Amino acid sequence: MTERLSRRRLFGVAGAGAAALGVGAAAGVVGERTLSPEPVANAETAAAVPFHGAHQAGIVTPAQDRMHFVALDVTTSSREELQDLLREWTVAAERMTRGLEAFEHGAVGGVPEAAPKDTGEALDLPASALTLTIGFGLSLFDDRFGLADKRPAALKELPHFAGDDLDPARSGGDICLQACANDPQVAVHAIRNLVRIGFGKVVVRWSQLGFGRTSSTSTSQATPRNLFGFKDGTRNLKAEEAAELEKHVWVQDGEDQAWLAGGTYLVARRIRMHIEIWDRTTLLEQEQIIGRDKGEGAPLGQVKEFDKPDFDVAGEGGLPQIPATAHIRLASKEALGGVRILRRGYNFIDGSDGLGHLDAGLFFVAFMRDAHKQFVPMQRALSTQDEMMEYVEHTGSGLYAVPPGVGSGGYWGSGLFTGSP
Amino acid sequence: MTERLSRRRLFGVAGAGAAALGVGAAAGVVGERTLSPEPVANAETAAAVPFHGAHQAGIVTPAQDRMHFVALDVTTSSREELQDLLREWTVAAERMTRGLEAFEHGAVGGVPEAAPKDTGEALDLPASALTLTIGFGLSLFDDRFGLADKRPAALKELPHFAGDDLDPARSGGDICLQACANDPQVAVHAIRNLVRIGFGKVVVRWSQLGFGRTSSTSTSQATPRNLFGFKDGTRNLKAEEAAELEKHVWVQDGEDQAWLAGGTYLVARRIRMHIEIWDRTTLLEQEQIIGRDKGEGAPLGQVKEFDKPDFDVAGEGGLPQIPATAHIRLASKEALGGVRILRRGYNFIDGSDGLGHLDAGLFFVAFMRDAHKQFVPMQRALSTQDEMMEYVEHTGSGLYAVPPGVGSGGYWGSGLFTGSP
Repeated sequence: MTERLSRRRLFGVAGAGAAALGVGAAAGVVGERTLSPEPVANAETAAAVPFHGAHQAGIVTPAQDRMHFVALDVTTSSREELQDLLREWTVAAERMTRGLEAFEHGAVGGVPEAAPKDTGEALDLPASALTLTIGFGLSLFDDRFGLADKRPAALKELPHFAGDDLDPARSGGDICLQACANDPQVAVHAIRNLVRIGFGKVVVRWSQLGFGRTSSTSTSQATPRNLFGFKDGTRNLKAEEAAELEKHVWVQDGEDQAWLAGGTYLVARRIRMHIEIWDRTTLLEQEQIIGRDKGEGAPLGQVKEFDKPDFDVAGEGGLPQIPATAHIRLASKEALGGVRILRRGYNFIDGSDGLGHLDAGLFFVAFMRDAHKQFVPMQRALSTQDEMMEYVEHTGSGLYAVPPGVGSGGYWGSGLFTGSP
Repeated sequence: MTERLSRRRLFGVAGAGAAALGVGAAAGVVGERTLSPEPVANAETAAAVPFHGAHQAGIVTPAQDRMHFVALDVTTSSREELQDLLREWTVAAERMTRGLEAFEHGAVGGVPEAAPKDTGEALDLPASALTLTIGFGLSLFDDRFGLADKRPAALKELPHFAGDDLDPARSGGDICLQACANDPQVAVHAIRNLVRIGFGKVVVRWSQLGFGRTSSTSTSQATPRNLFGFKDGTRNLKAEEAAELEKHVWVQDGEDQAWLAGGTYLVARRIRMHIEIWDRTTLLEQEQIIGRDKGEGAPLGQVKEFDKPDFDVAGEGGLPQIPATAHIRLASKEALGGVRILRRGYNFIDGSDGLGHLDAGLFFVAFMRDAHKQFVPMQRALSTQDEMMEYVEHTGSGLYAVPPGVGSGGYWGSGLFTGSP
């Protein structure tokens, strides 16, 4: 950790003679972002996560505390401009994940008569475990950019599910960018600067801020709670399960488009939770709907959170202790023929709904090898049988093909243009 | 800090025999919120802030990192119900600021056939410096509750300011509740549970989540940055300036309604920032609009952030180095006849605006002794002369009278009902 933190350097050169240019500004030139003197996070939450690798970061990276997610539509019709944008984005993204500004001489230290190349609100903040992850929506593979023959076979519209109330203004998009960090200002800064780099080429279609993670993606993390007050993601796929990740998350060589090998799919669902109604249900009913107890998070009939659920054992009256309609049963690999996904969602509150309630919920984000073989059967079961559906409403949806990681000198999605990943 | 942390106790009693009631739940009974095994914050950010005192917490408390603010309308017409609600709220608020659930035997440990008394999503989280602060809007003092003669003289509608584009759905409200904490889930949990306690008596009028503080309220804190990328609040009133706080923040004995002595006023303004347009302006122009340099945050013509601005010194061509229209000049006590306010705002991102941009800005919160003598002249000057107005838009507004602190056994706003604070 110390090694990573020490990469960040402070150029605290007070340009006291800089009264030229009519500004009179004696700028303390800060060429790179610097650690705040005030410890808002410990060294672990402040450190940098490596950008380069076989897979993109932000997937099996231990889930950070906060998220800013944005879906973009491409407005240029130039293939070259799109390609250039992906190159530019990659350079800026890699810098920001190291705790640097999006560009050298960014917010300050550039030409005073030009717009600063970085917006500056993260100047004093550490890397905060920032990860930036890109995905490509189905609409990118139309005939605008000559990418139709690069469309992955498994990148197809998700079907309509029972109870879906999807808002087109919160769904889809040519490109998605996921920023996760332990400081929300760092995540927001990263998205804003990537959007800004894309000015004239992309526009924001929708954006979602998540304030609290709802899943662990590593055995080193405690299981967080969702806004139903329950621990969420106890049986989630974890970074430590390498063989399971190959099986359930990473697209394998020769499986689909060559450029997607080592990549994955991202499913995003904005799930409004009617918390006011949920809060009026009894503890008994809540635990039967989830299939776990509320305090410890143990499967019904067991004692500890990580005890294996026993879906067969009968309780009083011969009924299963974990009801047939319990969420953890319907979403389990046991019920779904072995299907697992890597969940990485966040709680949200988007103000109020105009009807006296908070607009609260779960921004579900999950990664998987084939959404149609994993998310779709799971959501079909949940949307038709899960009693929790009485309390939730899916209001936004996105499916994106997530390219593999970038090697040094490479760029996001280069395989779209070259034919190999 | 250790002393405060140790108040929190873990009742890790695994009720392994609790297979009664047909649930089969082996609940690990958690009577109070417990520290997460994973250090998401250091001891300082996790500690509790005392609830009781001469003034409410959340005003001069060193500004926490996150905020959830809600404005409520009272739907009951019963004075007694309102009074009971304030009593209930006070008990729950005091508990939550200690890191406890809203009620004893809250999310778990209560009657299984009843709705849990706490919603549970903060069960594993520390106090996180949570503060809860209440204020009363003008509309509370109509004739519904017999409070008309308790209306403070200075609690009058704010005037319309140039450029205001206020949305009634983001303005006003009978009551406001401000939750600040270093963990957003703790702030959200607190607001949600207070709203829930008020079910049938109050409804949510509007709510605002703030992800990053934009002001320091203590000399112990570093100055954070707003979404224009500038340090914000360098000259803010600070908790350490006791005499200045008496002069500018606390309503004095005999000055207005007796119940408000030791209280203050809260002004909230939702300020949309057109960051995409700002980001296209030059560094020179940005610094001239603000009146400080972007990197160090020093007043133009000075070297360090906390150097005193010299509003008289001339720069090139005889023009003032800090322009006549600079934000820091117009908002300064020097330009406003000595007026100061205590700012305590937060950055926000509320998704996107449907036009390709992020819906980003500053949720301005400030405390002062008389909004009409402090905020109004300041905002009149800013709204007519500040060049920053080209980049911002006030989209919501609220003014609330904030009662004094609560002693042990007292309750929020008791003076409204008894005639003394």
